[in-house]
Amino acid sequence: MSGTLYGVGVGPGDPELLTLKAHRLISSAVTVAYPAPDSGASFARSIVAAFIPKAAREIPIVIPMRSERFPAQAIYDRAADEIAEALQHGDVVVLCEGDPFFYGSFMYLFARLAGRTPVRIVPGVTSMTACAAAVQRPLCARNEVLSALPATLPDDELRALIARPGALAIMKVGRHLPRVRALLAEAGLERRAAFVSHASLPHQQAMPLAEAPDTAPYFSMILVPGDDPHAGS
Amino acid sequence: MSGTLYGVGVGPGDPELLTLKAHRLISSAVTVAYPAPDSGASFARSIVAAFIPKAAREIPIVIPMRSERFPAQAIYDRAADEIAEALQHGDVVVLCEGDPFFYGSFMYLFARLAGRTPVRIVPGVTSMTACAAAVQRPLCARNEVLSALPATLPDDELRALIARPGALAIMKVGRHLPRVRALLAEAGLERRAAFVSHASLPHQQAMPLAEAPDTAPYFSMILVPGDDPHAGS
Ligand SMILES: C[S@@+](CC[C@H](N)C(=O)[O-])C[C@H]1O[C@@H](n2cnc3c(N)ncnc32)[C@H](O)[C@@H]1O
Ligand SMILES: C[S@@+](CC[C@H](N)C(=O)[O-])C[C@H]1O[C@@H](n2cnc3c(N)ncnc32)[C@H](O)[C@@H]1O
Repeated sequence: MSGTLYGVGVGPGDPELLTLKAHRLISSAVTVAYPAPDSGASFARSIVAAFIPKAAREIPIVIPMRSERFPAQAIYDRAADEIAEALQHGDVVVLCEGDPFFYGSFMYLFARLAGRTPVRIVPGVTSMTACAAAVQRPLCARNEVLSALPATLPDDELRALIARPGALAIMKVGRHLPRVRALLAEAGLERRAAFVSHASLPHQQAMPLAEAPDTAPYFSMILVPGDDPHAGS
Repeated sequence: MSGTLYGVGVGPGDPELLTLKAHRLISSAVTVAYPAPDSGASFARSIVAAFIPKAAREIPIVIPMRSERFPAQAIYDRAADEIAEALQHGDVVVLCEGDPFFYGSFMYLFARLAGRTPVRIVPGVTSMTACAAAVQRPLCARNEVLSALPATLPDDELRALIARPGALAIMKVGRHLPRVRALLAEAGLERRAAFVSHASLPHQQAMPLAEAPDTAPYFSMILVPGDDPHAGS
């Protein structure tokens, strides 16, 4: 293969949170690949739609939504083959929401192609710090520990993680919101926690967790600040 | 006060990892503030030096290096007063390495000014994902937990944190490198760990921890991936 595979973070949603480097690579791309749901638009693509050259070849990687927990191996195998073929003619830019290596599905392509072609990762603004910006509260400070974790974990694991000292960023909230809220309440943390959905987008919502509705979209997160008494002073 | 205080993440070092939004705000800034050591150049300022308008007023916040562990309250009090005064005439852009709310010293200004003036946070690419990009290894995947923590913690706390399942990002390595390396070796993790300094800068170094020199610069990090056997497959 003669091309380079670029895993490019496109940030949490606001097109202005793209890096200059991502902007440069996308604006001059010959081939662009991105994850897409089986119905509806690709979120990663929608962020940078205005910057994709009209003449670029596009490779949507269609992931049926129900396969979230069992990433469809066959789909990534096929996408990797298609991208490998495109790499014979030049570079391929893979669009990744947030940062490619922070809970990103880019790793499935990376695992399949990294040994076969040169790869460059362009880090992006993660949803985690975009959510902290949205609630206007430091994520972690000084000597605090920050734990990032998925809300999809079972109750007993979540309970143990919530009991840890330090700050928490609970990802992939979606339909797990009532369960996570109950566990945070149990630990006496509900009042400190904040809920954010669609951070940095026009329809962003940011509020105390206690005020959050019971149904949360997939693009939502719960942040619990640490309790360093000196943080911020 | 009539101006808005902007806490602007400028990313890990490569000026191209600035966001379009940070670029716009800095290029049109009237007043720019930034942390600076008592001798030598400000790292945050150096990242965006090419974009600061010649006519902009600059407010360096000089932090003596030895005060790292005891943030100099009086210095931030004075800086906040100077910035408050500048806010009477218009917006002030505070430059923050990486992201403002991810272990950033911006919180000290934020704590002093947030109640008194409108604040906007512009998230940036953190050093953590820039380091993962440098070593070309996913930071965290699927159901893994990621713990970010400072190497400055005492041995017993570090030992307990290192024993946690999941991925680790150990910040503020600097002179703590030999100690952290010994603790990781004790836990059988040294071979999985990577060391990165000056991620995204021309003098970036990225290598297996076992090959890292004993003296590390302040701008360095140790990453330990999780052990999810399905990650990346
Ligand atoms: C598979 S992870 C991808 C994370 C992404 N790689 C990043 O760096 O932010 C998807 C989760 O990220 C979070 N997320 C992504 N974008 C978000 C946004 N704009 N606002 C709130 N949460 C978001 C949600 O928790 C969502 O379930
Ligand atoms: C006070 S924290 C600031 C972190 C910053 N706000 C961020 O979002 O990355 C400073 C620590 O960040 C890490 N760091 C910052 N820039 C780095 C770089 N370019 N390469 C490696 N580590 C870096 C180091 O661990 C350093 O000790």
